[in-house]
Amino acid sequence: MRKVLIANRGEIAVRIIRTLKEMNIASVAVYSSGDKDSLHVALADEAYCIGGPKSADSYLNIDNILQAALMSKADAVHPGYGFLSETPEFAERTEELGLIFIGPSPETMAKMGNKSMARQTMEGAGVPVIPGSDGIVESKAEVKELAAEIKYPVVIKAVSGGGGKGMRFAHSDEDVDKLYDEAKKEARSSFNDDRLYVEKYIPEARHIEIQVIGDGRGGAIHLFERDCSIQRNNQKLLEEAPATILSDSERAEITETTRQAVAKLNYRGAGTIEYLYVAEEKRFYFIEMNTRVQVEHTVSEEVTGIDIIKAQINVAFNSEIGISQEEVKLSGHAVEARLNAEDPENRFMPSPGKIEKLHFGQGRNVRVDTHIYHGYSIPPYYDSMIAKVIVKADNREDALFKLKLVLGETVIEPIKTNLDFQYYLLGHPKVLANDYDIKFIHIENIIK
Amino acid sequence: MRKVLIANRGEIAVRIIRTLKEMNIASVAVYSSGDKDSLHVALADEAYCIGGPKSADSYLNIDNILQAALMSKADAVHPGYGFLSETPEFAERTEELGLIFIGPSPETMAKMGNKSMARQTMEGAGVPVIPGSDGIVESKAEVKELAAEIKYPVVIKAVSGGGGKGMRFAHSDEDVDKLYDEAKKEARSSFNDDRLYVEKYIPEARHIEIQVIGDGRGGAIHLFERDCSIQRNNQKLLEEAPATILSDSERAEITETTRQAVAKLNYRGAGTIEYLYVAEEKRFYFIEMNTRVQVEHTVSEEVTGIDIIKAQINVAFNSEIGISQEEVKLSGHAVEARLNAEDPENRFMPSPGKIEKLHFGQGRNVRVDTHIYHGYSIPPYYDSMIAKVIVKADNREDALFKLKLVLGETVIEPIKTNLDFQYYLLGHPKVLANDYDIKFIHIENIIK
Repeated sequence: MRKVLIANRGEIAVRIIRTLKEMNIASVAVYSSGDKDSLHVALADEAYCIGGPKSADSYLNIDNILQAALMSKADAVHPGYGFLSETPEFAERTEELGLIFIGPSPETMAKMGNKSMARQTMEGAGVPVIPGSDGIVESKAEVKELAAEIKYPVVIKAVSGGGGKGMRFAHSDEDVDKLYDEAKKEARSSFNDDRLYVEKYIPEARHIEIQVIGDGRGGAIHLFERDCSIQRNNQKLLEEAPATILSDSERAEITETTRQAVAKLNYRGAGTIEYLYVAEEKRFYFIEMNTRVQVEHTVSEEVTGIDIIKAQINVAFNSEIGISQEEVKLSGHAVEARLNAEDPENRFMPSPGKIEKLHFGQGRNVRVDTHIYHGYSIPPYYDSMIAKVIVKADNREDALFKLKLVLGETVIEPIKTNLDFQYYLLGHPKVLANDYDIKFIHIENIIK
Repeated sequence: MRKVLIANRGEIAVRIIRTLKEMNIASVAVYSSGDKDSLHVALADEAYCIGGPKSADSYLNIDNILQAALMSKADAVHPGYGFLSETPEFAERTEELGLIFIGPSPETMAKMGNKSMARQTMEGAGVPVIPGSDGIVESKAEVKELAAEIKYPVVIKAVSGGGGKGMRFAHSDEDVDKLYDEAKKEARSSFNDDRLYVEKYIPEARHIEIQVIGDGRGGAIHLFERDCSIQRNNQKLLEEAPATILSDSERAEITETTRQAVAKLNYRGAGTIEYLYVAEEKRFYFIEMNTRVQVEHTVSEEVTGIDIIKAQINVAFNSEIGISQEEVKLSGHAVEARLNAEDPENRFMPSPGKIEKLHFGQGRNVRVDTHIYHGYSIPPYYDSMIAKVIVKADNREDALFKLKLVLGETVIEPIKTNLDFQYYLLGHPKVLANDYDIKFIHIENIIK
């Protein structure tokens, strides 16, 4: 019997354990001392404590995680998302021990982790990119020179960036003078890498991403696209599949272009190619590739019927995706709401604490992925996401309405959550009209 | 805005309210004083108390229910299952008030409620029936005469029967002498109708039923079949769709034969034609028609993607099913486990009480239909079913295994439930091998 260690926590650890069980593969949980009562620990076949509650001591502690992998005699390691999932060193050291890393090769991961190199690589593979610097920029003068060519506004970005860290928007040479050093400093402190690159700033765009799975041997499929344009501070809140803003021909073209690029890279495992989409121009611009499973993979699962975690494991153990592109059919519309333990009335500050009342909406075409349960105490150390509520319906309108109804049935108390905020968004005229861009929540002043 | 009163309680009331909300139809709950904390009361747009906790005082109290319908200005009444759902008088009096009864006409209901007449009607419509009496039997002598012709064993059944009440198995003339009066007496006390009829006893059969929906104007569709052979004392425990014991050609034939019969009857609304299926003979024998939604309608919804409650409402308001037969496609395999508040260690005695711990298995392709929640007290007055857990997978083997895993995650405490019993069944070699008949649980001595 095969055995997989999950180097993660929370809902994604629970999610992975469930598919492992369905595949008759033994599961090994790792947990911090702050997570001993977590659901993933209870559900796994074995569980190892790997350190203190701080992520650096546990979920980011490569030595301790690999020690648990050896002790448990695991065959493979699934990194989930976040934490070490995009750290080439972790993949490399896992493979050095003779274990399978469920994800791409460390080389591919490193290439895509360097946002500037990812841009060049994807451009070379035929994917549309945003006009910008060829690689890193070395000085303010170089930024200004480029801006003269591609026109302001431009975005200065950290090569190792993510989540908006080390990112600055410049509308003029004066902005560059002021913001370049700020971006460099923030990049250094966030990623220990102060290299920057520059792209033209695309205002009023949608965030559209393509789910792909490669077999590592030149074969790749796509599971169509997701629209994740409803974001707060670059954090996705509501995600859906498909992106109904696209025409069928646009969908067919961008998914196939992306699939071919991923195949050309001999990409191994699940990944996501993120684009900005400008509706007026009907053009896509590559942002970045995430070389792991995404939080929002669920909506693609719902509209295709495919278990993405199972496909990841099939690729890792057998170099086979187990599904051909012809078998991937789009059916219905799915929407996911991320529920976070945070206070929308107080600048979305995290709101950890004990859950005294818990009830999720249920029934037909409702899916809940969560690690919380009645009596569970949300620890203050980690990401504030506590549950994902996903619904499926025949079309976008029905799916949004159904998700609103399901959230209306949901009770999570006494901690503060964004449940009411999500409920409000699902009734917002612009959301219903599919008329917004990624800055929607900020522009509409929905945040107090 | 339309408004529908739900003349029921428990999970089916919750189920119906959810679809009403999705259809933008206002919902009116009715409840007994024993059910004031029930989820269906909280979820409905309005709620009316209709009497004391005893069913006779509330959920079977036609006057009070129709009073609530008038007070709330409801346009229609959905009867759910059980209670008044198959009482022609209730349908008739609802219609007399100018309200829509969401179900068949009182005449059809009466015809199918009389089990002997149902048998004759369905035989006339081309459906295979069990050899037996032409209508009711008037004496022991008549039973013996018939048995000489169709051979023992035979079953003596109540014309108004259901759930095994007033039913006796006779293997000889002596049995008839002994059991005929017993059956008559039980039929009288259970249904206030002591008329009996006789059928040949079919041992070692499977229970296979076809889900149909008619538009009341000669149009009808089927949603394929369910296999509900795992029963205890004629109460279904595990239900699945499709019935993999059937070949594709058998499935095609019985579903189309049934659909045509239902169309011929100008049947209106959702209904189920129940058959005994003898695998060795590859033959179906009509048992009865249920003129309402079934507990296990969920598994048909999962494998066809169709909302049966929505179809019922479409038929009731518009005389349109909203789906053509060509659109009904079978996909995957679904299994439902009924969770009952009862003690398998003590002859399945009901086990009402307060729920202190509650956690259902969750995730991809898991559906829970329930009215219970953390802190809810199960009242002692009603049916012991407290939840239905339904899963879907690519095939039967995977679905059974997945359901076992989901039940393994489920916690309902401190009341006694059949959770462990269902878990055991899902691992039983005969269940996995699809090798059992409707008496399986009794024959295998699974019950202590």
